[in-house]
Amino acid sequence: MTTKRTLGPLERIFPMPCVLIASGTPEYAGLMTASWINVVSNTPPTIAVGIRSSRETYQHVEATQAFSVNIPTSEMADVADYIGLYTSTKLSQPKPLTTELTLSPGTASLAPIINECPYNLECIVSHVTEVGHYYVVLAEIVETHASEAILVDEESDLVSMDALDPLIYIAGAREYRRLGPKVADAYSVGKRFVDPT
Amino acid sequence: MTTKRTLGPLERIFPMPCVLIASGTPEYAGLMTASWINVVSNTPPTIAVGIRSSRETYQHVEATQAFSVNIPTSEMADVADYIGLYTSTKLSQPKPLTTELTLSPGTASLAPIINECPYNLECIVSHVTEVGHYYVVLAEIVETHASEAILVDEESDLVSMDALDPLIYIAGAREYRRLGPKVADAYSVGKRFVDPT
Repeated sequence: MTTKRTLGPLERIFPMPCVLIASGTPEYAGLMTASWINVVSNTPPTIAVGIRSSRETYQHVEATQAFSVNIPTSEMADVADYIGLYTSTKLSQPKPLTTELTLSPGTASLAPIINECPYNLECIVSHVTEVGHYYVVLAEIVETHASEAILVDEESDLVSMDALDPLIYIAGAREYRRLGPKVADAYSVGKRFVDPT
Repeated sequence: MTTKRTLGPLERIFPMPCVLIASGTPEYAGLMTASWINVVSNTPPTIAVGIRSSRETYQHVEATQAFSVNIPTSEMADVADYIGLYTSTKLSQPKPLTTELTLSPGTASLAPIINECPYNLECIVSHVTEVGHYYVVLAEIVETHASEAILVDEESDLVSMDALDPLIYIAGAREYRRLGPKVADAYSVGKRFVDPT
């Protein structure tokens, strides 16, 4: 085992997903790139996301209490990066126009969803905690939309990772990555440790 | 663009990290596998994690207000899976003994850290929200420990992803994956959309 070094408090977990948050309305949508997001409960299905309190997205979320989480493919790295780099108010035209993203109304909430992202979650705010310059927003997942092309078959709700090819973010190194190969089956490979008696 | 299908509310974001949570003390550590975890703020560095309220881990966290987040390599998939599959109270011996994991005391908190995981965060609880059968625990990251072997050089706090080789969890499909290749540089590739004027 190699020696360890202490680095101080760093806001890094590896890896992080990289998603697009859409808020507001389909006609006037706010777009934000988020890596500080994950599921935190399934009773009901709930996500947590950190949103900088000064962001336009938070104003929309506060107004409508709804937003969508949209998973881009790794080919959309440039789109995700652009959306994360700039604040709408400093741009000459809306982000959807520049990035050629289109939005549809949600079916279970006021959240607009991004058509070009193959996987979308509609979310309704359930709890907000202020943590420094961020709001940690807990939101119930009320609907999932998935492109037929990423589902493993016509009956299943399972997503093929090779078809989705989700974008991944690496903190610190500031790079986007793709998903790699399967290592093992969960709820299975750990059984080897069980005492056979 | 292919047609989309609605799948109902599903607690899935792709991909998720897969970490080991250590709680209690080095001598009597509770170990839990968690994929419902991420950073949510950097003021101060803060993580959110969903912990099932009936878990031994939550009892420890409530008692000490501290825990560690330990990132396993993809080679530790079997260890992570075993820790996630079984409740300590139903096992004939402690999980660290079975999995040959060893623990050291934290240096900035009461949290024990897992020596065999090359990257560890010590965390102190700051806020707890009950969401169904889960507690969403917000905790401040108070120290980071990294193996010299995963750091890009002697001066840097940057982690080499190829050296760390972090374990990744895919919800629904219930599989473990490795990280794939780099796609693009963040804070860079999106600049191509900027109007050159």
